[in-house]
Amino acid sequence: MTFDSAAFSVFAGSRAVITGGVGFIGSALAETLVGLGATVTLVDCMAPNYGGNLFNIAPFRDRVQVEIADVRDTARMKPLLEGCDYLFNLAGQTSHLDSMHDPVTDLEINCLAQLTLLEACRAVCPQAKIVFASTRQIYGKPHYLPVDEKHPLHPVDVNGVNKMAGEAYHILYHDVYGLQATALRLTNTYGPRMRIKDARQTFVGIWLKLALEGKSFEVWGGEQKRDFTYVDDAVTAFLLAALRDETKGKIFNLGGEGAVSLDELAALVIEANDGGTFSRHEFPAERKRIDIGDYYADDRLFRQITGWQPAVPLGEGLKRSIVYFRENMEHYV
Amino acid sequence: MTFDSAAFSVFAGSRAVITGGVGFIGSALAETLVGLGATVTLVDCMAPNYGGNLFNIAPFRDRVQVEIADVRDTARMKPLLEGCDYLFNLAGQTSHLDSMHDPVTDLEINCLAQLTLLEACRAVCPQAKIVFASTRQIYGKPHYLPVDEKHPLHPVDVNGVNKMAGEAYHILYHDVYGLQATALRLTNTYGPRMRIKDARQTFVGIWLKLALEGKSFEVWGGEQKRDFTYVDDAVTAFLLAALRDETKGKIFNLGGEGAVSLDELAALVIEANDGGTFSRHEFPAERKRIDIGDYYADDRLFRQITGWQPAVPLGEGLKRSIVYFRENMEHYV
Repeated sequence: MTFDSAAFSVFAGSRAVITGGVGFIGSALAETLVGLGATVTLVDCMAPNYGGNLFNIAPFRDRVQVEIADVRDTARMKPLLEGCDYLFNLAGQTSHLDSMHDPVTDLEINCLAQLTLLEACRAVCPQAKIVFASTRQIYGKPHYLPVDEKHPLHPVDVNGVNKMAGEAYHILYHDVYGLQATALRLTNTYGPRMRIKDARQTFVGIWLKLALEGKSFEVWGGEQKRDFTYVDDAVTAFLLAALRDETKGKIFNLGGEGAVSLDELAALVIEANDGGTFSRHEFPAERKRIDIGDYYADDRLFRQITGWQPAVPLGEGLKRSIVYFRENMEHYV
Repeated sequence: MTFDSAAFSVFAGSRAVITGGVGFIGSALAETLVGLGATVTLVDCMAPNYGGNLFNIAPFRDRVQVEIADVRDTARMKPLLEGCDYLFNLAGQTSHLDSMHDPVTDLEINCLAQLTLLEACRAVCPQAKIVFASTRQIYGKPHYLPVDEKHPLHPVDVNGVNKMAGEAYHILYHDVYGLQATALRLTNTYGPRMRIKDARQTFVGIWLKLALEGKSFEVWGGEQKRDFTYVDDAVTAFLLAALRDETKGKIFNLGGEGAVSLDELAALVIEANDGGTFSRHEFPAERKRIDIGDYYADDRLFRQITGWQPAVPLGEGLKRSIVYFRENMEHYV
């Protein structure tokens, strides 16, 4: 990597709060921060349809503070944020279909809770460096590829509208109140600890699970291109975004090493698993309405400012994922 | 005007609901619709800091149904929307400063209530033609002028973020569920019935009030350019947006006849009032943070599709406003 990872030594002795901290990316970030010597508080509501899974943090459970709390609960959140140096704000409802079936809950979590969280930061930790996990979903169907940060926003589901608002609050609270907030628009992030029991955290999870179970998995479409970020690379990106002053008040795409088609991805999953099968299907009607076709990010802005680049190639990341879930399957299904 | 106003005869016998219907634009729209023979229901929460004022509808109070209800109250809204042919969705918190002091209330009205309203439409009036009153505020500080609909969105206050989300829900519910929704991004709309007791509905209101009271009014800055829509022209735009199929699922700017500086506007107010004075001031710190500099809209897209154009020049519109408020001052202060 071109960035100097010695820079991460500044996290030693700092106080970090991670919302969604028992989830997929949150727990990976927590493990890294604990390793760097930070005092880490994980906030997670542990709702069944979300990413929180206590097994994710089992290896370092005794070295973090875990608060089972809902980010919507301002009275709980405020004291937890006191003295916070870094807030990694990853709590969110991530399922696109759930957001259509229960739009108000999605709004409460992805929109209202973000606003009250930022108000709490203003009150108790106005100097904290904040990194918000946003999503490429808010671009909607790309007008051009690769998609850069200037691409117009046209969310295709309620989740997208609410994430768009949640992101905008962060930038607004930087502009108006000087909060040190950065937003990362994540693409498909994958790796150990991801939710695999269903497709609520990208379709990759359910593919991995079915491949490991020796079952055929379904590819909807197949030719659509997507990009993928391995979780360790996402963690590095969050840390860099927190550290670098030039990122504050800004929004960045985070992508991967390049775009692959879903057919190619399926082949890589099978290769990583040393075998398996998949079938190709037309899009189900309910998903077709919110399908976006090809997407891959232009993330040069973030690479340029922070020196970030992906370190784990897709094939390798999938192999590590397969190894992890083969070992720990019972905790994820 | 280039559009055929005989087209408005289709409103006769139709059922229209106007949220924020006792407010400034809502009541003007109501009067026009009543004149066209529509059955009109006005929904308004009549909260003190908003636009609702029963005097606005006094001339036709007996020819409309008035429901004092909060758009956040889904149980109340649903039956009111049954059988609705046209929904003019104008209810909103409009004060930028109030949105910063009480962001959650702004979110509930401009964001949450819009979502629940659209859910209600899906359930009870999926064929209704819906026009949403959006705002130029969501563009933030213009990158170029005039601002067209492709201009990136960068809201500068909580109100802007929430209106952006409210607008996006409307377009989303068109795209996904086929609701016949159109969004109009309004610039400064002015005219009889506007709120003049403070600056919660643009600064023009308070200028008119002070000029009429023989007091000097304050111009913050002075060189900034803005555009203005006279309320009758805005009403025509709402009706055209509702009627024309080509507007559905789309977002349009609505501007005026051209841009004038605030200094020029101040001179026009004094001319309309046959006298008066104003003083120029530096921006107060609290407002400076959310000032956007010059703004004027490129609204050619809407003009092209609907034939709309402004009929009332600024000087004339200000004269009509002065005449109205001179006559009815006690009902607006």
